[in-house]
Amino acid sequence: MKHICSALLFFVVCSLTAQEAIFSAAAVNSPKVNADNTVTFYLKNNTASKIQLVGDWLPKTDNVTIPVDLVKTNDLWKYTTKALSPELHTYNFVIDGVKTTDPGNPFVIRDVSSLMNVFFIKGGNADYYVVNDVPHGTITKQWYYSESLDMNRRLSVYTPPGYENSKNDYPVLYLLHGAGGDEEAWLALGRASQILDNLIAEGKVKPMVVVMPNGNVIQQAAPGEGVKGYYTPQFMMPKTMEGTFEASFKDIMAFIEANYRIKKGKKNTGIAGLSMGGYHSLHISRYYENTFDYVGLFSPATLPTKDKHSDVYNNIEETLKTQKENKYQLYWIGIGKEDFLFKNVIDFRNTLDSIGMTYEYHESEGGHEWKNWRDYLVLFLPKLF
Amino acid sequence: MKHICSALLFFVVCSLTAQEAIFSAAAVNSPKVNADNTVTFYLKNNTASKIQLVGDWLPKTDNVTIPVDLVKTNDLWKYTTKALSPELHTYNFVIDGVKTTDPGNPFVIRDVSSLMNVFFIKGGNADYYVVNDVPHGTITKQWYYSESLDMNRRLSVYTPPGYENSKNDYPVLYLLHGAGGDEEAWLALGRASQILDNLIAEGKVKPMVVVMPNGNVIQQAAPGEGVKGYYTPQFMMPKTMEGTFEASFKDIMAFIEANYRIKKGKKNTGIAGLSMGGYHSLHISRYYENTFDYVGLFSPATLPTKDKHSDVYNNIEETLKTQKENKYQLYWIGIGKEDFLFKNVIDFRNTLDSIGMTYEYHESEGGHEWKNWRDYLVLFLPKLF
Repeated sequence: MKHICSALLFFVVCSLTAQEAIFSAAAVNSPKVNADNTVTFYLKNNTASKIQLVGDWLPKTDNVTIPVDLVKTNDLWKYTTKALSPELHTYNFVIDGVKTTDPGNPFVIRDVSSLMNVFFIKGGNADYYVVNDVPHGTITKQWYYSESLDMNRRLSVYTPPGYENSKNDYPVLYLLHGAGGDEEAWLALGRASQILDNLIAEGKVKPMVVVMPNGNVIQQAAPGEGVKGYYTPQFMMPKTMEGTFEASFKDIMAFIEANYRIKKGKKNTGIAGLSMGGYHSLHISRYYENTFDYVGLFSPATLPTKDKHSDVYNNIEETLKTQKENKYQLYWIGIGKEDFLFKNVIDFRNTLDSIGMTYEYHESEGGHEWKNWRDYLVLFLPKLF
Repeated sequence: MKHICSALLFFVVCSLTAQEAIFSAAAVNSPKVNADNTVTFYLKNNTASKIQLVGDWLPKTDNVTIPVDLVKTNDLWKYTTKALSPELHTYNFVIDGVKTTDPGNPFVIRDVSSLMNVFFIKGGNADYYVVNDVPHGTITKQWYYSESLDMNRRLSVYTPPGYENSKNDYPVLYLLHGAGGDEEAWLALGRASQILDNLIAEGKVKPMVVVMPNGNVIQQAAPGEGVKGYYTPQFMMPKTMEGTFEASFKDIMAFIEANYRIKKGKKNTGIAGLSMGGYHSLHISRYYENTFDYVGLFSPATLPTKDKHSDVYNNIEETLKTQKENKYQLYWIGIGKEDFLFKNVIDFRNTLDSIGMTYEYHESEGGHEWKNWRDYLVLFLPKLF
């Protein structure tokens, strides 16, 4: 009997300890994705005056999402959406005016300095964002020494299913994040490993190594993962778009070639990035001439470089011409019609047109958002290698 | 001018988009660790009635933490703690009775189904929990096929600094989580990779490979990382303590031996775990006779197995005697004086004593908590290999 009590106690006390169930009303699981793709959010609470939520599917006015109210019946607050489109959706609760996370949902992703709760509506491209019953690649978080920056730095690497069990070499894609992101961004918000697993399983994408470095040269690693410890990340960090990252990029390539079984040569090498990472990809693919046969610019920040003092930005048009003359397989540009960089991308396309540099252009709905960047990755990957 | 405007717009609009700054009052960074190790929490809000917090340093009554109130001056809420001890501290905000996360702190760790904000107070063992300027090991998230379970499953592996640049074989420690945990737990709450990096850098711990599998046999992977997608994890899952994991453990060892440069043999092999993982370590180290020279039981759930129907639990005393006769280097037990399993561990030690099985025993303050398990890991690792 004593022993049985101990066993029971294990369940009960551990549950209390682990969950820190400090309030009478237990957290209610939230949200529930209903069969018709409506979604119901729940919160159990008897003391708050107003519980609202903001979500990526709700309309915005001047870039500001209008919160919707959860409705209270007894102590249960509830809100059901209209049917939502397939997507990795993000939302926050607003509790008496404080924007924070839904206590019923332990799944969050950090975007710059904000945490957002997440859930999936399946279907369409979103079926590539979820973990399906297919072979899975391996994710490695690894440190390398950057001689150019004299700094130990962290990067993420995806190796495809079968990498460990073969002696084959693989082509490599360098996949760059945007401002405020880091070596975690394409994995967390970008769902890169799931997209790769699923497209490789369907035979639509060639098995490849995908390298996701950190493009903020003042940062060793994602916030919390480097010696600076926990600190609030900023959207734009110093030295992110002034040539230093591009100039140091050779250290990343050398490390990857030394540590992974990579097929050498231009035809086995690609680079792509979103926003600031698109800017980096544009300049890196020019600066390291004859290195990349595949270039992807996702909502690229094709901004002027006139006021920047780096050799990287010398003779941009001339080096683009050289890039054209050296030939490449694919120069891909994707942008949303509502993207605030849309006009800049038109200017950049005019530059490319003026020098006769060919590119594949994809114009989507929407703006400067992860929804588009995940879509672009799904479109871009099958064109590689 | 047009171009300069675009560049400015990039900063401004991206900042807005990325941060979804949808309310007039911007989030304030929180908390601030002050020079005297007091900690100040902040929240900017003008509509909530009561903002409180609960934290691991606050007193409890019947396992329930008593919340403390933040004090409002104009629209800034504030609370300063007494000086806190060195630790990875956890806390939550309670906004008008809703326990959730601090919107000013993007750093959270999931424990079972709850998210907790975290911050560090440095000093003591906590200096091993932070990322220091030392060589860093590599973290790999990888899938293996378990033949025993006919299931693809995910595990985490730490390889020490230098692993990639050498041809050496390394000893291996299997490090098991507790109930409600998974292959992420020792890395997230346990700070295993930082502890290993820091102790290896000090020369106190031998470079080793550390394997952190998932001990919940009904689970492929941590919640959100497997085909079940996002769902609310439970504290105790079916089939966690009835022999199946122990019986399938050979699949994990075979995978690691095939995929990592592991020194073979008992003297190069250790196993340790916390709570349920201590129970698993106890039984695995008996069941796979003559396999482990190093065993660590951290607050182990040394619970009775009488009602369980698995060959794994046959002849427990006899197999412990065999384990003793086969000899081992270290059988280490750590438990807190306030742990609800304290009495069970006394019973287990009596069993060990009665058969003359020697062990090293560490009795600490505190209870069934991560604070102790991190401490125990710091004590245990230097004794290995």
